[in-house]
Formats: sequence, C-alpha cells, structure tokens
Amino acid sequence: MMKAAVFYGPKQLLKVEDCPKPVIGPGEILVKVAACGVCHTDLHYLDHGVPTFKKPPLILGHEASGTVAETGANVKNFKPGDRVLLPAVLTCGFCEFCRLGRENICKNMVMFGNHIDGAYAEFVKAPAKDAFILPEEIPLEEGCIIADAISTPFHEVKNRAQVKAGDTVVVFGCGGVGINVVQLSAAVGAIVVAVDINEQKLQWAKKFGAAYTLNISGLSDAAKEIRKMTNGGADIAIEAIGNPNTITTAFNSLKKGGRLCVIGYTDKDMIISAAKTMFFEMEIVGSLGCRPVDYPKLIEMVRIGKVQVKPLVTHKFKLHQINEAFETLRNGEALRAIVVING
Amino acid sequence: MMKAAVFYGPKQLLKVEDCPKPVIGPGEILVKVAACGVCHTDLHYLDHGVPTFKKPPLILGHEASGTVAETGANVKNFKPGDRVLLPAVLTCGFCEFCRLGRENICKNMVMFGNHIDGAYAEFVKAPAKDAFILPEEIPLEEGCIIADAISTPFHEVKNRAQVKAGDTVVVFGCGGVGINVVQLSAAVGAIVVAVDINEQKLQWAKKFGAAYTLNISGLSDAAKEIRKMTNGGADIAIEAIGNPNTITTAFNSLKKGGRLCVIGYTDKDMIISAAKTMFFEMEIVGSLGCRPVDYPKLIEMVRIGKVQVKPLVTHKFKLHQINEAFETLRNGEALRAIVVING
Amino acid sequence: MMKAAVFYGPKQLLKVEDCPKPVIGPGEILVKVAACGVCHTDLHYLDHGVPTFKKPPLILGHEASGTVAETGANVKNFKPGDRVLLPAVLTCGFCEFCRLGRENICKNMVMFGNHIDGAYAEFVKAPAKDAFILPEEIPLEEGCIIADAISTPFHEVKNRAQVKAGDTVVVFGCGGVGINVVQLSAAVGAIVVAVDINEQKLQWAKKFGAAYTLNISGLSDAAKEIRKMTNGGADIAIEAIGNPNTITTAFNSLKKGGRLCVIGYTDKDMIISAAKTMFFEMEIVGSLGCRPVDYPKLIEMVRIGKVQVKPLVTHKFKLHQINEAFETLRNGEALRAIVVING
Amino acid sequence: MMKAAVFYGPKQLLKVEDCPKPVIGPGEILVKVAACGVCHTDLHYLDHGVPTFKKPPLILGHEASGTVAETGANVKNFKPGDRVLLPAVLTCGFCEFCRLGRENICKNMVMFGNHIDGAYAEFVKAPAKDAFILPEEIPLEEGCIIADAISTPFHEVKNRAQVKAGDTVVVFGCGGVGINVVQLSAAVGAIVVAVDINEQKLQWAKKFGAAYTLNISGLSDAAKEIRKMTNGGADIAIEAIGNPNTITTAFNSLKKGGRLCVIGYTDKDMIISAAKTMFFEMEIVGSLGCRPVDYPKLIEMVRIGKVQVKPLVTHKFKLHQINEAFETLRNGEALRAIVVING
Repeated sequence: MMKAAVFYGPKQLLKVEDCPKPVIGPGEILVKVAACGVCHTDLHYLDHGVPTFKKPPLILGHEASGTVAETGANVKNFKPGDRVLLPAVLTCGFCEFCRLGRENICKNMVMFGNHIDGAYAEFVKAPAKDAFILPEEIPLEEGCIIADAISTPFHEVKNRAQVKAGDTVVVFGCGGVGINVVQLSAAVGAIVVAVDINEQKLQWAKKFGAAYTLNISGLSDAAKEIRKMTNGGADIAIEAIGNPNTITTAFNSLKKGGRLCVIGYTDKDMIISAAKTMFFEMEIVGSLGCRPVDYPKLIEMVRIGKVQVKPLVTHKFKLHQINEAFETLRNGEALRAIVVING
Repeated sequence: MMKAAVFYGPKQLLKVEDCPKPVIGPGEILVKVAACGVCHTDLHYLDHGVPTFKKPPLILGHEASGTVAETGANVKNFKPGDRVLLPAVLTCGFCEFCRLGRENICKNMVMFGNHIDGAYAEFVKAPAKDAFILPEEIPLEEGCIIADAISTPFHEVKNRAQVKAGDTVVVFGCGGVGINVVQLSAAVGAIVVAVDINEQKLQWAKKFGAAYTLNISGLSDAAKEIRKMTNGGADIAIEAIGNPNTITTAFNSLKKGGRLCVIGYTDKDMIISAAKTMFFEMEIVGSLGCRPVDYPKLIEMVRIGKVQVKPLVTHKFKLHQINEAFETLRNGEALRAIVVING
Repeated sequence: MMKAAVFYGPKQLLKVEDCPKPVIGPGEILVKVAACGVCHTDLHYLDHGVPTFKKPPLILGHEASGTVAETGANVKNFKPGDRVLLPAVLTCGFCEFCRLGRENICKNMVMFGNHIDGAYAEFVKAPAKDAFILPEEIPLEEGCIIADAISTPFHEVKNRAQVKAGDTVVVFGCGGVGINVVQLSAAVGAIVVAVDINEQKLQWAKKFGAAYTLNISGLSDAAKEIRKMTNGGADIAIEAIGNPNTITTAFNSLKKGGRLCVIGYTDKDMIISAAKTMFFEMEIVGSLGCRPVDYPKLIEMVRIGKVQVKPLVTHKFKLHQINEAFETLRNGEALRAIVVING
Repeated sequence: MMKAAVFYGPKQLLKVEDCPKPVIGPGEILVKVAACGVCHTDLHYLDHGVPTFKKPPLILGHEASGTVAETGANVKNFKPGDRVLLPAVLTCGFCEFCRLGRENICKNMVMFGNHIDGAYAEFVKAPAKDAFILPEEIPLEEGCIIADAISTPFHEVKNRAQVKAGDTVVVFGCGGVGINVVQLSAAVGAIVVAVDINEQKLQWAKKFGAAYTLNISGLSDAAKEIRKMTNGGADIAIEAIGNPNTITTAFNSLKKGGRLCVIGYTDKDMIISAAKTMFFEMEIVGSLGCRPVDYPKLIEMVRIGKVQVKPLVTHKFKLHQINEAFETLRNGEALRAIVVING
C-alpha cells in the first residue's frame, strides 16, 4: 500500500488515503515520487468540472520527478536508484502524428492524472521508454516542474512560435506558463516584452529575462502601445492566459507578417480580422505540450544553467497539505507550487 | 496620345478616351499592351467604393502583357520588340519585407491601376527591373493572366499553404482565383477536393485537376462531410471566396495539425475556436499576391505546359467593350475575361 | 511449409526450397505475398559481399505486396483478405530519430531480407502497425514496387531535396531509382533535366516527365553544359548513381545557393570545393529510404494516377526464375523487375 | 582632403596619405568614420595576393562605424550627427538572390575596401538605404565590429546552421570569427563545445558561453573524442578555420542527421564520406556574410546586452599605426583589433 491524493469528483477536496502500490509489467518502471507540481489543469477538474478520461476515483498529478524503485522485464535504460523525470503525457509511437514527429498531439495520448493514475502518490509506474534521466546537477524536487511548466513553453517557443535570435516577442500573461515563455524566449535570443496587469508578475518577468515590461491595466489601446514600443509591431505574440480579448490584442500588437501563438486555454472563440490576416500575411498557430524528443535538450539546458527551475518554485507542500497547495494556486500567490512526497 | 479606359469614380462607367502616352525615364520601359485581365479587385473600386491610392482620373488594369516599345537609359535586360509580362505590383527592394524575401508585402508597394496608371491602355510604362520575358510558347494575349490570376494562387500554394506531395487540399470557391488554386495544388502533387455551390465551376475544377468535388449547397454540415471524404480531415484548407462563414467551415474541415490559408477578401472578422487551435495545434495563415522572384519559375511552368492559361480565358473583349467585360465579371459568367488592346 | 528463395552467401545462386511458414505473434499479420521487387540492394549481398545483418541462410526480398492471410491477437487495423503493402524497413517508434519524425534513419531499423527474413517467399510476417492498405485501384503485383523503388525517391524529392514548384532539378542517372526521382520531381511541379549516358533511359525519362534530357557520354564538361541549359545552374541536383565523379559534376551543375542531394550509394569519398560551398552557400544532403508516415500520401498519389507504377514494371518472373530476374538487373535491361509469387 | 590608408598592392605596407574626400550624390550619406575593424580578409589582399575588384590604389576597410557628416538629396532616414554602422557589403536589391531574401549572396554585391573605397579613412560614403542606426548604448568604436566579426556568425548561426534551443554545437576554431560563433550559439540556447589547439582561445570561449572546451592538439582521433563528449555526436558542427582536415573532423564529430556548416575559407577541396552522407542523411552547408535585414535584430541584441562587443576588442590602433594593427592580426595576438580614426 501507499499514500496518495485521490480525486473523487469536482467541488470536493482531494482525499489523502491508502491505495494499492502500482504493479509494473514488462518494459515498465516503478518510480518513487520525489515531488509533483501543482497545475492549473488540475484546477479544471477540481473547480470547473472538466471531465477526466479515467472516471474518479483517480490519483491526480502529471508533473513528477523521483527515483527508480523497480524495473520490469526488458528494461535496459534504467536501474533502481536512477533519478528520473516523467513527462506529463505518454504517446503511442505509431499514430500518424507520432510518426510525423508531432508526438505531442498523439492520437492515443495518455496523460498522468487524467487517463491513468498520476503522481500525487508515493509511487507511480511508467513505461521505461518514456522516462528521462534527471542529472545530479538538477535538484530532484524542483526538477519536477520541467515536466510541464517548463516543457510546454519550450515546445511553444522552439517549435510553434519558432522564435529566432533578435525577434521581438510579446508575452501576454506572466503566470506559471507565461513566466516560462518569457524565460525560454529570452534563452533563445529574443527581445522579450512581458505584458501583465500585475506588477509582481512583471517584476518576475524582468528577473527571468524580459527586456521590457508593460502593465496594461487601464490602457485603452494596449496593442497600439505595444506597436509603439516595438517600432511598428512585434514579430511574435504569445497568448499565455486564455482570454479571447487578450488574443485579439495580441494579434493587433503584431507587425505585418507576424505570428500569433495561442498557448492559453479558453473555450471561447477567437475574433480575428480576416482582411488583416490576408493583406498582411499574418500567422496564427496553437501549441500543446512538448514532444518527448525535446525533453533531453531541455534537461541539458537546465543542467548547465541556461534555464532555471529553483527560483520558480515559490511554494512547497507535503502530500497531506495538497489541498492547501491548490488553494495557493487558486489565489495566484505562487509562481509554481510543488508537492514534496518522499522528501 | 493613346486610347485608354479611365476611371472617374465609383458607380460610373469607365470612359475610353484619348490620354497622353506615358513618357519613360532612365531604367524604365514603355510597353505596348497586348492584353490586360479583368479582375474582381477592379470591381471593388467600381462597385463598392474601395478607394484607389491615386485619385481619379486613373487608368485601371494590373494584369498586362505586351511588347517593349521603347527602353530608357541604362536598360540592359530588354530591347524593343521583347515580349513581356508586367507584375501586378511593383516593389521597393529595400524595405524590411523586400529584404526578407517577402516583396509581396512590401511597405512601399505600387500597384498598376491603383497607385499609378494601369494597362487598360495602348501603352503603359514600368521599371525594367520588374518586368519579365514572356517566351514565344506562351500566347501573348492569354499570357497576361499570369500576372495575377495565376501568380496569386502560385504564391499561396507554394509559400503560404506550403502544399506538399500527397497532401489533401480542400479549396473553397472555384472562381477566378480558386480555380487556379485547384490547378496549382494539383500541379504540385496534391489530392485536391474542390468545393463550390455551382456545378459548372465544379466541372471546371475537375478539368483543372481536382481529384474530388463537392457541391455544398444545401449541406447542413459541410465540414463534417469533408472530414468524412478525407479520412478525418484535410491537411490544408484554402478559402478563396472571402466569406467568414466559409472560413469557419474551412477551418472545421481540417485534421489535427492542419493549416487554413485565407486568400479571399472580406472585411468581416473570422470566428475560430481558440481551444481547437491550441489543443490540435492548428495553423491559420494569410496570402497576398506573389513575390517577383517566383514569376520566372511560374512562367517556365506555363511554358512547358504544367500550368495552363489558354482554357482559362473564356471571354475576350476589345478596349471599347471594357464595360461589357466588367458586366461579365459581375454576372459570374467568365472564368477569366481579358481586354485585348493591340490585338 | 512454404516455398522461398534462400540466400546462402555471396557468389551463389539463390536456392528455391521449402521453408517453415512464419508463425505470427500478437500484433502481427501473416501476408500471402503477391509480388516482390528485385532491387540493387540485393545485388550488393549477392555480388559484392556486403554482409546482411541476419547471417545466411536468409530469405531476401524487401519490396512486397500481398493479402492478409492471418492476423495475430490485438490486430485491429487489418482483417484476412485485405490487400497490403509492406514497407522495406520496420522502425522502433521510440528512438531519438523516430521521435523526431525521421523514422527512416531509426536507430533500431529492421529491414526485410536483411535483418529478418524477407518476401521472396509464399508468406512473410510483419507488425500490423507497419503495414499499409493497398487500394483496389492499384494492381497488387505492380504495386509492390511502391515499397522501395517509388517510396525512396518520394522521400528524397519531398523531404530532402525539398523540390518546390518551378524548381529546375537535374537528375543524374535514370535507372530504377533515378527514373522515379524524375517521375516524382515532375509530379511536384519541377522542371526536370534528366541526365544519363544511355539513350533508352533518357527516352524513359521523357515519358516519366522530364522536360529536358542530356546524354553526357563524351561531354568534356557536363556541368558547364547543364549550367548553360539551365540559365546559370540548376536549383537542385540529385545524384542517383553512386559515383564520386558524378557527384562532383552534379555539384558543379548547380547555381549559387543550390542543393545537391545524394541518393546513390558509393563507398568512395565526395570531393567538393569548400570555397564554393562557403561563398555560394551551397547545400549537400543525403537521403535514405522513406518515412512510414509518407506511405499513405504516396499510395494515394498512385491511386489517383499522379504517380505511375504499371509502366515501370518491365519484367516479371516466377519465384523459381528468381536467379534470371537478378541476371536481368545485372544487365541493366529492366526498369524494374518483380517476382510474382502467388499470382 | 582627408587622411586614409591606401593599398598599393600585395607585400607592401599600407600608405597613410592625403586623399580626396568622397563626394556624395542623391540617396547617399557621408560618414565620418569613428573606427574600422581589422580583418583576415584584408590579410588575404595584403599577404596572399588575393585580388581586389577595384584595382589599387584602394582604401581598405569594411567594418566601420561613425557619424553622419552630410546627407545627399532624398535621404530621409538619416540626418547629420546620427550614429551609424555600415554593413561590410552593399547589395543591389533586385537580383534573384536579393529578391529571395538572400541578399548576402547578391549577384551584384559591392564590398567596402574591395569593389569600392573602404573605411580606413576619415570619411567614407554609403547609400542611405544600407546604413544602420547605432544606438547610444553601443560604444561607437567597439560597435564597428558588428559589421562583420559579429554579423557573419549571426547569419551563420541563425540562418545556415539553424541552431535551435538545446542543440549541441561544436565550434572548430575560436579566433575572430569562431569566438563569435561560440557567443552567438550560446546566445540562442545551444550547448556549445568549443574546439581549438590554443588554451588562451579556449579560455576566451568559456567566457563567451561555451559549456565545454576541448584542446585537440595531440589527439589522434578528435572526432571520436567529441562524439564521446556529446553522447554520440553533435547536432551541428561549425568549421570556422578553413582547413580541409578540420572540415573532415567536424563532419565526423556529428551524429546521424547532423549538419556541418562551413564558414572558414580554404581553396582546398573537402573530402567527405558519400556513404555516411547518404545512409545517415547528413547535411553540409556554407555560410557567407549577413543579410541586411538581420542587422537591426543583431544591433538590438547588442544594445540590450545579449551579445557583447566591448570585451572582444582587445587592441586599438590609430590610423597611422594601421600596419602595426595588421601585424597583431598576423601574430594571432588579438581577438579583434580596430583602427580608431576620429576618436
């Protein structure tokens, strides 16, 4: 048996209780969880009734690090004691999208704490082919946030927004995702303009590499202001909030030929000028998750200090405090909170 | 003096009258116009009051072929008698977009029959650096439509939609522009699904290379029908009409990771699902005109028969019949009509 | 038991003899082979002593079509009687290259008739995830050559040479691979210059879409001749022979900024001007095989007639005639020969 | 009149003497030179007899900063007193390559201190369309090296090697060009392995962002060592020396699918395995200069401190000491030396 935080349905607290320890099969590893990040995606299940693919009871948690406790038959790339990072999502490897190199939109994707039990638990199991070594230089606890909070912006900046050296990139929203869009864009040589309505978050954005910040609360035409700051408009705008109005503002802050990247979630429609899209050859793209093949590159960037994780983790909780952790998230107090499990 | 069709303002007929013959300067050529295509863009000035950059009186016409009548000082790439094609738009060569290789969105673009006098005239002048040789194998009259009706879809298919061999491409609208989106997509190896509400146009689409056609008049969910035909959705959808509802349908006919290309003009907004854009990593891009550097490639494709112009020109008029030519366009009778000038 | 052609080592004839029929496991299908192409790769084992990964005795054959005879447990995408195409190479789906979308250079690739028994046999087994449906419109026998003779050029033209509409593409060598480089380049809108020293092959190249042909036998400076024909040099040159001298010629036939694609095999070094590579920003790329994800696109192109297979199969043999089939290949008589097995 | 350093032919010292001050025409600016970098390209004229396009006497110098002294007719983007950077090379804007967005390989390129008089002079003239504003934050003197020493690696890293976040990039040679390939690769998020035979240069490489260094003097198989360090091979190798043996080593240090970028000059041939190029789908590309459109992006990176210029300028000379400056370059003592003119 093991302790785990179990989800029984929306509008209820998670219950920390005894559950069966996972039993691994061939090709799988059992991971003793060190820490697991607390994510807005979980809040969608808890607060907004977004359904999970596995019906409750379900162990949530998709941003986990730990050490290998056991290895199944045929596992060659791991041995007990290895420090590991688990990706948030498992992929099939043979659907059309996996084969295109777009595993992040796999037709058969399986997400921890959604399709299967997750990592707010002492142990979690995973296919050995999908786990990554976490080198000694990366702290085991804070390293867990690479699995989503850092990897999702990494994919977005590298593959979807395709930020290049010297590009002017405007980032809308400097919360858990946005702050790392700022960090990653700066890390690849962009001139970053961080936009938010919260001064504290803009301070953080400065620390993580923004060249400029703009508080748009109270501005009547934020897009115009940004076009002025950026000498006619940004090359790239990234919406990391999930608000249709901000999406429109982001689009309007671009120069001719610019690219809007949508990474925040909203169930509302975007309203975009068709004429401007056509005459100015604008581009709008979405971004989801991160390709497994990019994790090792990102982990190496963290290892040698090009991307930081430690200062991002502003709050730590024990497993029995997990409902407090989500309260912190709801209040917007944390950059990133984690649940430390086998500390 | 020369004869020309002059635009005096919206809701008026063009007046065919005597005008001064253009006087060329250094680096310019004088072109004796053979023919000039009749385009919906002109109808926007004539019928809908879209303003031209040069105030009337203005000679319209931006899709011209002809022969060189005179060359100015320093012109080395042309001599009198050369058969030439004039691009619809002239570009500066030194703004940010020209220097990026995106001359088609030049900051200082100059369009024939809009910023300057056009080619519904016996003569028109042009910078020698911007004209193209039209080889003997391409008929001088029908060749004129390369300048816009063929080149605009060429750019869109090659550079913006980035159609690749074996891609499934759904084309919405099979009129003057759309029919050539069909033709060009087929010419680069795509599986083309042509969509329209007019059976005649769908017949044409078949002739120009569509593998499948779909008449969507009366369909309650055209996007669903297309997803069924295309085994889950098209790789690429191209909207060549300029209708916000069709744009939404086009978007919804795509598979995960698909690309919507907007080439038709509308002053209305697009309404697009932000959640689908993000979760399925969709892409939306606009397309305008054609880069000068692509004209020689396209001309060569026409010359060796990979792209057809002759069967596209369904109607020919003399200069004094130019108002009838526009009537044909208004009625949707022509695939492409041209005005033959020095026939 | 079943009949198969078994390879016992170089410089020996294949032996057609009784072998055990393959036994399938979960996720596998048993394919009753219709036909299997005869390829130069086999000649490397037979004549030149290139070692196979599975030691002889080995059943050769990696270009097979057939019908599903049996399906293993958990196979959902096939049922007995389905017409199928087998790719030449199986891929792992989880190595770095597979995950990048470059399955064709998979770290753990398994080739039929090399790492495992192939398809010069009445039956062959394959993982269900790797087989493709062959539609009714494609003849079962001739369709087999899609698996290598057509797919290898498809990948090369689409992904490696990245041929675009209107590009001038010079193809060196119009044999089994080269003729399909010609065909595919033409099918994606290129202006193809076919180069060989054999008039018959140049005739074939014309039929498969070459705009120009050039017999370079006896030419003192073939590259110069090609640069003259192509108005200063080709955009792309493809070497489909595997001869270091031709590779140099191909490189020299390019314009500034041109791309050389090496698809023919040679164990010799290429000798390339470093100064020209640098000053003219030339590009040189290799190409191997075809990504599984591209097969369905290619099959659809064959199905609707954009790519032809029937006229390519100039010779057919029965299984007991397989050594004659290889003799034909050695003599250069065939465009493509196949072995018809369960005819 | 003005003072200038004049080249009279190879194997001679430059003569500092009085020359006529340039007279500007319409669209031109006269620049009072602040400083001009000393480059290996000049040594090719001085020491190795590489011919210049304008026959001597010729004022050398192609890496200049200064202030605008006069503006010609129609110049709108500059006024006297403006701080400016001049690109090393002027481009035509209308040839095929300029129009493709590849101005750096312009057919009609004009290089300062080669095709026309350069900037080892009190004044130099330039077309206003080609000069760039140098912001206050960038020191006028050290800023001059952006024009070649920084811009050439910028283009190479961004556009030719196409370095992406987390890529492992091996840089061969850490001299004037190589050190900035290191700096720029690090600035776009790469894991840089700097390779040289000089410990001092490797120390510099560390300071400019190399994650690892390797002294290959005395190594019997440097490529093997690098493959070991990089877990199987680098993603990208950049040869910044111009030595055919190092080019081969660089190629051999790559992983499957890797890209070799040649930026150093040699008149010798490269010797590359054709079989490895083909089977492993390797890529080899050249790189020359920098596109004008990229200068503003690079200048902004320097302005906000993402790219450093000050610590690179290890030596400064007055105009009358120019022959000493070249002596420093010959001896390999300087990272970058500049000639300060109107200090």
